[in-house]
Amino acid sequence: MTIEIIPLLEGVSNATLTAYIQDASMDQRFPIIRPAIIICPGGAYIGITEKEAEPVALRFIAAGYHVFVLRYSIGTQIGRFPAPFIDAAKSVMLIRENAKRWYVDADKISLCGFSTGGHSAAVLSASWQDDYLVKAIGADSHLFKPNALILGYPLLDLYQFKMKSLKNSLDMQPLLEMMFSAIYGTINPNDTLLEEWSCTRRVTSNMPPTFLWTTSEDAVVDVEESLNFVKVLVANKIPYEFHIFEKGAHGLSLGDETVGYKEADMRKHVNVHKWVDLALSWLKNLQG
Amino acid sequence: MTIEIIPLLEGVSNATLTAYIQDASMDQRFPIIRPAIIICPGGAYIGITEKEAEPVALRFIAAGYHVFVLRYSIGTQIGRFPAPFIDAAKSVMLIRENAKRWYVDADKISLCGFSTGGHSAAVLSASWQDDYLVKAIGADSHLFKPNALILGYPLLDLYQFKMKSLKNSLDMQPLLEMMFSAIYGTINPNDTLLEEWSCTRRVTSNMPPTFLWTTSEDAVVDVEESLNFVKVLVANKIPYEFHIFEKGAHGLSLGDETVGYKEADMRKHVNVHKWVDLALSWLKNLQG
Repeated sequence: MTIEIIPLLEGVSNATLTAYIQDASMDQRFPIIRPAIIICPGGAYIGITEKEAEPVALRFIAAGYHVFVLRYSIGTQIGRFPAPFIDAAKSVMLIRENAKRWYVDADKISLCGFSTGGHSAAVLSASWQDDYLVKAIGADSHLFKPNALILGYPLLDLYQFKMKSLKNSLDMQPLLEMMFSAIYGTINPNDTLLEEWSCTRRVTSNMPPTFLWTTSEDAVVDVEESLNFVKVLVANKIPYEFHIFEKGAHGLSLGDETVGYKEADMRKHVNVHKWVDLALSWLKNLQG
Repeated sequence: MTIEIIPLLEGVSNATLTAYIQDASMDQRFPIIRPAIIICPGGAYIGITEKEAEPVALRFIAAGYHVFVLRYSIGTQIGRFPAPFIDAAKSVMLIRENAKRWYVDADKISLCGFSTGGHSAAVLSASWQDDYLVKAIGADSHLFKPNALILGYPLLDLYQFKMKSLKNSLDMQPLLEMMFSAIYGTINPNDTLLEEWSCTRRVTSNMPPTFLWTTSEDAVVDVEESLNFVKVLVANKIPYEFHIFEKGAHGLSLGDETVGYKEADMRKHVNVHKWVDLALSWLKNLQG
C-alpha cells in the first residue's frame, strides 16, 4: 500500500485527500481493479474528527477498497459553503480521472460521511448534477457523480438542526455559532440560507443508493432528520437501507476498540458497531 | 423441554398457545429462571403463517427463552376485533400467572409479531392498560402488560394499509376483503373502524421498549407505516431500535435456511437475516 496526501485546490484551500492505494496483487488475476471509497469525517465544520478518518479507512481497506480520506476546507474564509461540497466533487473527479493508474473501478466510487462529513457527502450525492459544481470546477457533472453513499449520524437539515439545537439540553449555542460563522460567515444565517444546503430538500432521482445509520440516543443530531430524509428517499425511489440503533451517543465512529471503546462500552452500545458489517454487505451486494 | 398446546378460551375461540418450556437445568444454579417470549405469526387475519411460528420459536429457545406460539382467534365470527388482542392479553396473563411453575421471569414476558401478528402484538403493547381488556378478561391490567415488543414487517395503520393496498400493483383487493370480513364483519369498514385499531394512534408512554424491522422492498405493507410509527415512539419517548433492510420481500420470517431459503436467496436478501441477532442482543441488553 502507498499513502499519499494530495492537496485538492492548492493555494485556494487547505483541503487534502489522503489516498491509501493498495498494491496491485501479484497473482494471475493481476491487476485487481478495486472499488474506491471516500471517507468524510465530521467535526462540526470547524475541525476534522480524526476518529472518523483513518480508523474507518483501515476497515474499508481490510475489506478490499482503495480508500481516500477527505479533509475538506475548514476555516471562516475558505470553508464557507459550498466549499466542502466542491472539495467532495473534486475528490470523486480526481479518483475517476486516475482510475486506470490506481486500478480503481470508475463506476464504484462511493462516499462515507459522518455527522457534518455526512452532510457534505449527502449534499454532493443530492446535487452532483447541479450548476454550481460545473461552474466552480469547470468539468462535466458525471465526473463528480458518487456511485453510492454511506451516512453515519449525519446532519441533513440545517434548519431543523438549528431549531433542535436551540431547545437542546446540551448547550449547543457556542458550537452552533462557530459552525455558522465558518460555513455562512455569520452566526445567524436566515432560513433561506439554512434551507439552501439542507440535503433533504435537494434529493432527486439522481441520488445514488444510500445506506444510513444513526442512534436513537443521539443528543446532537435529531433522528427526525434521518426519518424525514428516508421519506424523501422513498418518494424519489432511491434504493436505501436504514438503521436506527437504540444505544449510543453521537460520534461513535466504528464504536469499537479500534477507536478507543473498551469491551464494557461496547456492551453498553449493544448493536451499533455492527453498522460496518451491515454497510459492507450492503455495498458489496450493490456493486456486485 | 416439554411442548404443550393450551386452549386459550375453551369453547369460545379456536385460539391456542403452544408452550415450549425448557427443562430446568440440573447444575448448581438450578432452577434457571428464564425470560419468555410470545410469537405472534402473521397470516392476514385469515390464517396462521406457520413459517413465522415454530422456526422462530426454535431460534428463541436456542437463545435461552421459554417460548409460546400464539395461534390467535381466526374466523369470520370468532376472529373479529378485538378478539386477537384479547388472545394476546390472555397469553401474557397466563404466562405471568404460571411464572413460578414454568420458571419464567414474570417481568420479562415479551411479544414478537410478524405482519398482522405484529399488528396484534403492537395493539396489545399500545393498549394493555385500556378498559376493553379489563372488561373482556375481568382481571387487572398489569397482568396483560408486555415487557418488550419485537415487530417484523408489521401492519400498523389499517387506514394507511387500505389506502396503499388500493393503489398496489399487486392485486390486493381479494385479500383485503377477506381480511376485513374476518376482523370487521364487513368488506368495507369505515374510516373510524380502521383508525380505531391502528396502533400508531394508540401509543402512549405505557408502550414497552420496541424493536422494529422491515424491508424497503416490502410490496404488501408500506414502510411509511413503520416510519410514522417510529415518529410516534420518539414523541412518546419509548426506547426503540429500528431497521429497514433494503433487500427482501414481505414475509421472510427468519430469512434463512431454517424457513426454506437457499444460500442463493440469502445472498440476494443480503442483511435481512441479521435481524434475529440484532433483536436478541437488543432484548438481552434491555433485560439484563
